[in-house]
Amino acid sequence: MEPNHTKSSDSYAADISSIREAQVRIKPFAQQTPVLTSDTLDSIAGRKLYFKCECFQKGGAFKFRGACNAIFSLDDDQATKGVVTHSSGNHAAALSLAAKLRGIPAYIVIPKDAPKCKVANVKRYGGRVIFSEPSMQSREDTANKVLQDTGAVLIPSSNDGRIISGQGTISLEFLEQASDIDTLIVPISGGGMISGVALAAKAINPAIRILAAEPMGANDAFQSKSNGRITKLSEVNTIADGLRAFLGDLTWPIVRDLVDDVIVVDDKEIIQAMKLCYEILKIAVEPSGAIGLAAVLSDGFRKNPVYSECYHIGIVLSGGNVDLGVLWNSFDK
Amino acid sequence: MEPNHTKSSDSYAADISSIREAQVRIKPFAQQTPVLTSDTLDSIAGRKLYFKCECFQKGGAFKFRGACNAIFSLDDDQATKGVVTHSSGNHAAALSLAAKLRGIPAYIVIPKDAPKCKVANVKRYGGRVIFSEPSMQSREDTANKVLQDTGAVLIPSSNDGRIISGQGTISLEFLEQASDIDTLIVPISGGGMISGVALAAKAINPAIRILAAEPMGANDAFQSKSNGRITKLSEVNTIADGLRAFLGDLTWPIVRDLVDDVIVVDDKEIIQAMKLCYEILKIAVEPSGAIGLAAVLSDGFRKNPVYSECYHIGIVLSGGNVDLGVLWNSFDK
Repeated sequence: MEPNHTKSSDSYAADISSIREAQVRIKPFAQQTPVLTSDTLDSIAGRKLYFKCECFQKGGAFKFRGACNAIFSLDDDQATKGVVTHSSGNHAAALSLAAKLRGIPAYIVIPKDAPKCKVANVKRYGGRVIFSEPSMQSREDTANKVLQDTGAVLIPSSNDGRIISGQGTISLEFLEQASDIDTLIVPISGGGMISGVALAAKAINPAIRILAAEPMGANDAFQSKSNGRITKLSEVNTIADGLRAFLGDLTWPIVRDLVDDVIVVDDKEIIQAMKLCYEILKIAVEPSGAIGLAAVLSDGFRKNPVYSECYHIGIVLSGGNVDLGVLWNSFDK
Repeated sequence: MEPNHTKSSDSYAADISSIREAQVRIKPFAQQTPVLTSDTLDSIAGRKLYFKCECFQKGGAFKFRGACNAIFSLDDDQATKGVVTHSSGNHAAALSLAAKLRGIPAYIVIPKDAPKCKVANVKRYGGRVIFSEPSMQSREDTANKVLQDTGAVLIPSSNDGRIISGQGTISLEFLEQASDIDTLIVPISGGGMISGVALAAKAINPAIRILAAEPMGANDAFQSKSNGRITKLSEVNTIADGLRAFLGDLTWPIVRDLVDDVIVVDDKEIIQAMKLCYEILKIAVEPSGAIGLAAVLSDGFRKNPVYSECYHIGIVLSGGNVDLGVLWNSFDK
């Protein structure tokens, strides 16, 4: 039941075994998040939708799974000096929380333009915040300096086998909670979540379809798939601030081989999806987290005959760190 | 394991058997709602809290359980002519939805000052809306006229054995999902939910403590318990528009005998609880629905030594029908 789904699977940074190990490792700490359904959204979408609510995960986003797996994978000597990351926020909060649970320091480099609620989350969980400039270069440089100063271990937000394995535990739960899912729609940014989800899901059911949901203004995964090689963008522009990262050398091969397609949506579609999450599902989901619903409701998905046989769709709602005022102000009232 | 918990139980409008029957009857239609937990809220409350999320119930509130049980209890001859109710909204939406599932008409009398989102819910679920004046007298008169005109069956929102039995299914699920609960906190209005919850919970575990949460500006249950008889108020004033109804002759004896205490909170505490639900739990809960959290965080509860041994507290979050704008505008920013 765990077929070798692709010839190159040996070379991936994670596999179904490392994902099952992660599940055991994080079980004492992570939430088994609920799956919600809605007849109203089903009739809007014309399909049966299952929503895996990672907005209810510890720390408010799926990121806790990977962070927890990474931190509890460290041996005691490594762990003592702490961990470092640069992150748009949810990974940072998750890493802070997991580090606190293990009793080690987490040094968090955050771009100074990150949403206030994300910074507050990091501090609430005991992370030690170091601000950088918004550019990826400044974030990396600042993180490297902290690494040198402290001897801590770098835990990237996506491009890391421990992270990919942790995020893959979403599939193990989801396919048990809703076993008739034939299609999974997952937000894509650095590719950590979708890599783990795809590896686990295709190991359990090789016929399952894996679709990435990506914002138009940060569509590096779409372009990478089209070009057949990692393609980075010179600039990104989207309300989905958690989806501005690019694929890395560990996530790209998995995305290349196991993600069936990338559905690109614009910010207006993302905001509409957030609104539906609030009004129909009664949950707070940030733009990056709501994009899976935006994808399934988009013309690009609905009018594509390739997807006419996607009947039971699992959507990962990935993060709930949205200021209420931001949500309200973004709506076209 | 199902003791005759009180000498007068024979005379109640429902019991553990009718609640178990309701569970079987509504199972094909109702959601088993998830239970959420939050370390952050636990540390604020100084206790372990379990949140039964009835805001995710079909129709957006626990009311669907009772409405569905009532409608599917009708024999075919009764059902054909449809059902009638007057309601502040959530029961109306629930009854419309349950009637639609059975393929019968639901005539819904709604006071014309009800929140827009509640009226929209009723219409969305196919209910036939008839507006009345805000007063309870006008609501009842209008409903009686509809009854005469149509021959439909009246389904009250609370004071009805079928409704009480349906709402009691919350306990059956909740105590299975979180078996260490020693105290249940439930919003009180007409008393339908807390009657069902108390009957089922005390049948399963006679030692369990049942506390009602009630708004200061509509504290008829508190006064009724103090006076030892049903006490109605000449006026009510609270943001919790779903908690303005009074106990009835069927719910009062159950509340009198099985509800251990009534915790009264003010509107400010209710709004703060809504905000915490949004910011920490990531869910949209209306004022009436959030009052259980308000109660557990209130001084009246925390400083009362009687409750020092309430360690594991189950809170029913009962409805999510809140306009985002209303939520945002109610916050002290």
